[in-house]
Amino acid sequence: MTTVVPVEKKVLHENQRIAGELRKRFEEQHVLCLNLISAPGSGKTTLLEKTLNCFQKNEKVALLTGDLQTENDARRLAVYGFPVQQIVTGSVCHLDGKMIERALEKWELAALDLLLIENVGNLVCPSSYDLGEAAKIVLLSVTEGEDKPLKYPSIFVKSDVMVITKIDLLPYVSLNLERMKANARQVHPGIEIIELSCKTGDGLDVWLAWLERRRDSVRERLLCARS
Amino acid sequence: MTTVVPVEKKVLHENQRIAGELRKRFEEQHVLCLNLISAPGSGKTTLLEKTLNCFQKNEKVALLTGDLQTENDARRLAVYGFPVQQIVTGSVCHLDGKMIERALEKWELAALDLLLIENVGNLVCPSSYDLGEAAKIVLLSVTEGEDKPLKYPSIFVKSDVMVITKIDLLPYVSLNLERMKANARQVHPGIEIIELSCKTGDGLDVWLAWLERRRDSVRERLLCARS
Repeated sequence: MTTVVPVEKKVLHENQRIAGELRKRFEEQHVLCLNLISAPGSGKTTLLEKTLNCFQKNEKVALLTGDLQTENDARRLAVYGFPVQQIVTGSVCHLDGKMIERALEKWELAALDLLLIENVGNLVCPSSYDLGEAAKIVLLSVTEGEDKPLKYPSIFVKSDVMVITKIDLLPYVSLNLERMKANARQVHPGIEIIELSCKTGDGLDVWLAWLERRRDSVRERLLCARS
Repeated sequence: MTTVVPVEKKVLHENQRIAGELRKRFEEQHVLCLNLISAPGSGKTTLLEKTLNCFQKNEKVALLTGDLQTENDARRLAVYGFPVQQIVTGSVCHLDGKMIERALEKWELAALDLLLIENVGNLVCPSSYDLGEAAKIVLLSVTEGEDKPLKYPSIFVKSDVMVITKIDLLPYVSLNLERMKANARQVHPGIEIIELSCKTGDGLDVWLAWLERRRDSVRERLLCARS
């Protein structure tokens, strides 16, 4: 078992190199890349569905969605008319830079301005693999308990935003929402927190506004680059 | 990246060797060992709390609970008066045989007849690491969506039972429960399915009866060995 750590380090180091190249390409092409991470069933695909539903049809958005098996998520997302690719990882518990690089071979990056990546449902391993994204976004549903940021700190430390999902279920679960938020801020004092329900639509405007702000900052850099 | 697979194989092979030794010890000592696996927040600790609460104080039960960080679960479980050890894995996304072996050094195995292991909250990686258990038990809550057995087949294939948790939330989520069960049976036709709510207590009797049946079969083997 002693050989694991150096090999894991080597794998992560190689991933970091590829992620660095991806980040450079995203920045040069003015593409905002976001990496959505959560446990299985926290609502990543549903949030993406609601997001795509609010976009104009001519927006330059594309999606990559990772799962161990099935093309279900790609099928769900494809109905909104934007380019989607499913990355089926087999037994691999996370997406890595190489998978993103390979998927992007099929697209013209210059034709995009937003790339949304839905990672494999896993609160642990995806946090170790940089995909060149501008920001990680962690989703946590109100049914998962307030202690998760303390138990799985890495992803909460590395995420710009925590999206608390399924707030419509708050009356039916024994969650201390304030404690959940305090726990997230304990491990990452600067983390932004957005609470929403894809069922009722509550809070979706806050999420969309956050997304627009991030897209605006990329657009501003594009204008500066052209002027 | 090409060195990963052989090393991973070597790690899994070594884990299998340790798990084999553990399994032999559990069988020789007539200890029923169960390995509970689920995504974070599906209710493993809560199910264990409800289970311990139904046990007589003199029952020979012990618990190991895994998390990346915090001793929260061990604290929650310790109040029932049975021996509990928290295994803090740091950044490791699963429990492995070595961790169990090390934890058991502190206990006299002959003094136990049931060992309940709560794995790290992760629907992917723990399925690859045998802990010498007599059975794996996968938990899936009704909030996680009906497609999870198809997306994460390995753990559903390897589990004797799927426990569907939080059925009290069924009226508030858009889950097709029959589809969820059909999906589990599609990947593992023989899987037993138990539906319960730790909040209302519905179905807990079915879970406890399943547990008793498994404990009875170990007790019978013990009687045979002594006669």
